[in-house]
Amino acid sequence: MLYAAFRKPAPAPRSARPLTRPVAGGLLPHFMSAAPASPAVSMDAIVALAKRRGFIFQSSEIYGGLNGFFDYGPLGVELKKNIRDCWWADMVRRRDDVVGVETSIIMHPKVWEASGHVAGFTDPLVDCKVSKQRYRADQLFFSPVVVEGAVIGYVSALESERTTEDLQAAAETLKRKKAVQGKLEPVTPRDFTEAKPEEVPLVPSPATGEPGSLTPPRAFNMMFETYVGALRDASAVAYLRPETAQGMFVDFRSVVDTGRVKLPFGIAQIGKSFRNEITPRNFIFRSREFEQMEMEYFIHPDADWLACHEEWLRWCQDWLQSIGLPATHLSLHEHPKEKLAFYSRRTVDIMFRYPFGVQELWGIAARSDYDLKQHQQHSGVPQVYFDEASKQKVVPHVIEPAVGVDRILLAVLCAGYAEEDVTDDKGNVEKRTVLRLSPRIAPVKVAVLPLLKNKEALVARARELHAKLKRNYAVFYDEGGAIGRRYRRQDEIGTPWCVTIDFETIEKDGTFTLRERDSMQQRRITEAELFQLLAEQVY
Amino acid sequence: MLYAAFRKPAPAPRSARPLTRPVAGGLLPHFMSAAPASPAVSMDAIVALAKRRGFIFQSSEIYGGLNGFFDYGPLGVELKKNIRDCWWADMVRRRDDVVGVETSIIMHPKVWEASGHVAGFTDPLVDCKVSKQRYRADQLFFSPVVVEGAVIGYVSALESERTTEDLQAAAETLKRKKAVQGKLEPVTPRDFTEAKPEEVPLVPSPATGEPGSLTPPRAFNMMFETYVGALRDASAVAYLRPETAQGMFVDFRSVVDTGRVKLPFGIAQIGKSFRNEITPRNFIFRSREFEQMEMEYFIHPDADWLACHEEWLRWCQDWLQSIGLPATHLSLHEHPKEKLAFYSRRTVDIMFRYPFGVQELWGIAARSDYDLKQHQQHSGVPQVYFDEASKQKVVPHVIEPAVGVDRILLAVLCAGYAEEDVTDDKGNVEKRTVLRLSPRIAPVKVAVLPLLKNKEALVARARELHAKLKRNYAVFYDEGGAIGRRYRRQDEIGTPWCVTIDFETIEKDGTFTLRERDSMQQRRITEAELFQLLAEQVY
Repeated sequence: MLYAAFRKPAPAPRSARPLTRPVAGGLLPHFMSAAPASPAVSMDAIVALAKRRGFIFQSSEIYGGLNGFFDYGPLGVELKKNIRDCWWADMVRRRDDVVGVETSIIMHPKVWEASGHVAGFTDPLVDCKVSKQRYRADQLFFSPVVVEGAVIGYVSALESERTTEDLQAAAETLKRKKAVQGKLEPVTPRDFTEAKPEEVPLVPSPATGEPGSLTPPRAFNMMFETYVGALRDASAVAYLRPETAQGMFVDFRSVVDTGRVKLPFGIAQIGKSFRNEITPRNFIFRSREFEQMEMEYFIHPDADWLACHEEWLRWCQDWLQSIGLPATHLSLHEHPKEKLAFYSRRTVDIMFRYPFGVQELWGIAARSDYDLKQHQQHSGVPQVYFDEASKQKVVPHVIEPAVGVDRILLAVLCAGYAEEDVTDDKGNVEKRTVLRLSPRIAPVKVAVLPLLKNKEALVARARELHAKLKRNYAVFYDEGGAIGRRYRRQDEIGTPWCVTIDFETIEKDGTFTLRERDSMQQRRITEAELFQLLAEQVY
Repeated sequence: MLYAAFRKPAPAPRSARPLTRPVAGGLLPHFMSAAPASPAVSMDAIVALAKRRGFIFQSSEIYGGLNGFFDYGPLGVELKKNIRDCWWADMVRRRDDVVGVETSIIMHPKVWEASGHVAGFTDPLVDCKVSKQRYRADQLFFSPVVVEGAVIGYVSALESERTTEDLQAAAETLKRKKAVQGKLEPVTPRDFTEAKPEEVPLVPSPATGEPGSLTPPRAFNMMFETYVGALRDASAVAYLRPETAQGMFVDFRSVVDTGRVKLPFGIAQIGKSFRNEITPRNFIFRSREFEQMEMEYFIHPDADWLACHEEWLRWCQDWLQSIGLPATHLSLHEHPKEKLAFYSRRTVDIMFRYPFGVQELWGIAARSDYDLKQHQQHSGVPQVYFDEASKQKVVPHVIEPAVGVDRILLAVLCAGYAEEDVTDDKGNVEKRTVLRLSPRIAPVKVAVLPLLKNKEALVARARELHAKLKRNYAVFYDEGGAIGRRYRRQDEIGTPWCVTIDFETIEKDGTFTLRERDSMQQRRITEAELFQLLAEQVY
């Protein structure tokens, strides 16, 4: 049991720590890709591969696309399913203390009043009245332009890796344009939520470059609204859930009543959520429709929540590594006390180094008893658990690890992608694109390749093996083209192993050539050994 | 290859045929539950079991529920996932001619204009102005009440298994109430879509019993609407998809360009769909949020579509049986020519005998090239496939098998549920509730039970076996209560096998007692044999 020693003191939280515990605790031993990922992958390369090989398409592409929505193609859907299935197996099926649920995307609107989303799930929205563009105020930066102590105007820029440099350059342009003499002072960037009322009309719109068209920020609720039933009035309003977590809180009592669960225990869910983002960006990283994997771990109010939080923080890091994300790309970000939501005792994010910056991948929050108490108050139904030991009814506290499937999928693509120069048998150097995906999540586990497509015996044996493997594994049969080219095609989609049926197979000992993606090394292997390899590494 | 003999003539379609081909073609050989399902199961029993054992809850129950929305509890989510996973394995991974996609729930609104849903995806809605109730006109039946050739009034009744009897009874009541003498003629039920304008004010509302309050039927579009982005005008309207199928049509070109597919081939998808039903009913059978498993099988325009349609019709029946639905509960319904959509060449539904009647489970439609041509016209992007053989660009035709996960789940619960009298060793008769689920989809595959919980050696061996099984299978460890009671608990949730660790296990040969759910028979089994049994029957 992971939580046997529940009241042990935990190490005090520190901010922005490197990972200190790379080995999985409580998880099955896992295979780690040998080579570290290429450090300099660009988003363009990832997006191009995703499109070229059918991982990810823009939604409704033939109609010009729909901003913030994506489709998964034949390989993408397999990769996504594997990520989900690995999480479900490790989080639910292989644990004795976590059960699953699947709650509806449209829930009773009172759920979102109780949770605070109706009142507070907002982003600050700024309109440009001239261009009709919309901005998130906290992503729109501005600065006064000061020359020799006098403000000669304002500049603005959208948040990026080089916001300050952009503002400084704009300031210089403005000074030149206005032909002001004297020393330009460094810009002092603030985001637009911090603009004073008298500054609002002075800040230029990023769309037009001219001031006067930006509105003051207003709270924009990010929940998608719809109407349930034939009426279209306030009584019929419902929301697409912006998170799956509330489903676990709302069903807490039903699970306790039917699930034979005992504190501490978790309720887990995988499912779609929707957020009407003002500015969806970074490919599938911030989209309007996405898929979450969340788990609410309920603990006794007197339990050592900090130790439990630390345990889950470690578990999540271990799990990410078990599906092949290298520790070198991961880091921790401790939310500073003053920025925590009032009900939160602690939140630590596992960060991933994406090509567009280090960004949140997995948030692990200690949410106290806030959610259950809110639902208790709004529904009038006691959200309690009867504790056998103390013979008392308690409202449990909760630790919540919440992660997005799409973000993980993007992370494994970014960490796994590499372009390499390789030398063939004849000494020729050529480029190969390789996707180093863990065998646990690779869309195709094994490619079965007859050495020559015009040799019936090779083809027959290859097809036989392919059929046999297919019962349990996603496999691919390919007889077209030179063997080297066929290897390359599999490298690019992340297939860990190729098996070639050659003349040794049919004329000598029945063994195949096993070619390993990362090392590109080849060795002979029997059918039994192949099945054993798969049983060990695909789970 | 299933479609090798593609142009063979197919047998002419017949209407309402019994199943003639109970053995799976193209599917792995499957295990069939020995005992037929109990014929007289009631929906009340199913709903009660679903709630009691945590299969299905009402959505947002603590807030009074939300009509037409449901949650899946710890066992329900496992059962649902198993149904999805079996379908995906058989439909996609184990076939060479079908690939998967996962498209967004919110798509570009033009998709639904092209598909015809914006204009035509409507149900006829009738309002009762007094009670504010809403009815589907095609589910609201009425009849004039005729005595000796004279109409003395109208009666109405909602569609049920006994609509005519209800109308007749209401007619007799009306005659008595109006004190009319003479012979009452039999009622002539019509649904409210067939009401003449002059009849509308004469038909009593089912809510009030009085005429005058029903409105004429109006077309009500069943797509849920929302707004994408910060604007709330016509340009921002989007819809929650009412079917997954359009995703496959819209991504057809992307899949062809990237997926290395050759005609004939299929694109499959599993995902949520939403329909704003006027009258959700029959538990999870007709809900507002549900999950579909659809596949579009693209064929050459000159291919023998009828043979292909027949092949898929057989495949779907075989598949339903492979997950344990008995042939006795299945039948076919051929849509009559005059009721087909204009683009459809043929549609046959696989029907299932639910407790509330024989209803559609799986529709297999020959949709011609309608959808691709519509999208070609509306998007301006050619929806063509280059046929190597004829060197021509063609717009493929399509065969579409479309089924709902929730309907299958309800079917397996209904078919598997039984209450039986069983006699124990001492000759006592007691009741057992049993859920005969196929090992393929059962939420728990094996329960591991130490005979006694206070014998350390038994418990240790049981825990060891449990841990070992858990790597690959959903298993349950239970040490509480008499062994007979523990068997009953597993029977009720559909666990095919219980393994008891007893003194023979630890003192003699290491074998366990394997207890089979359906026959209740017990035999000794080794650990290796247990793993082999699971490998064969859980796939």
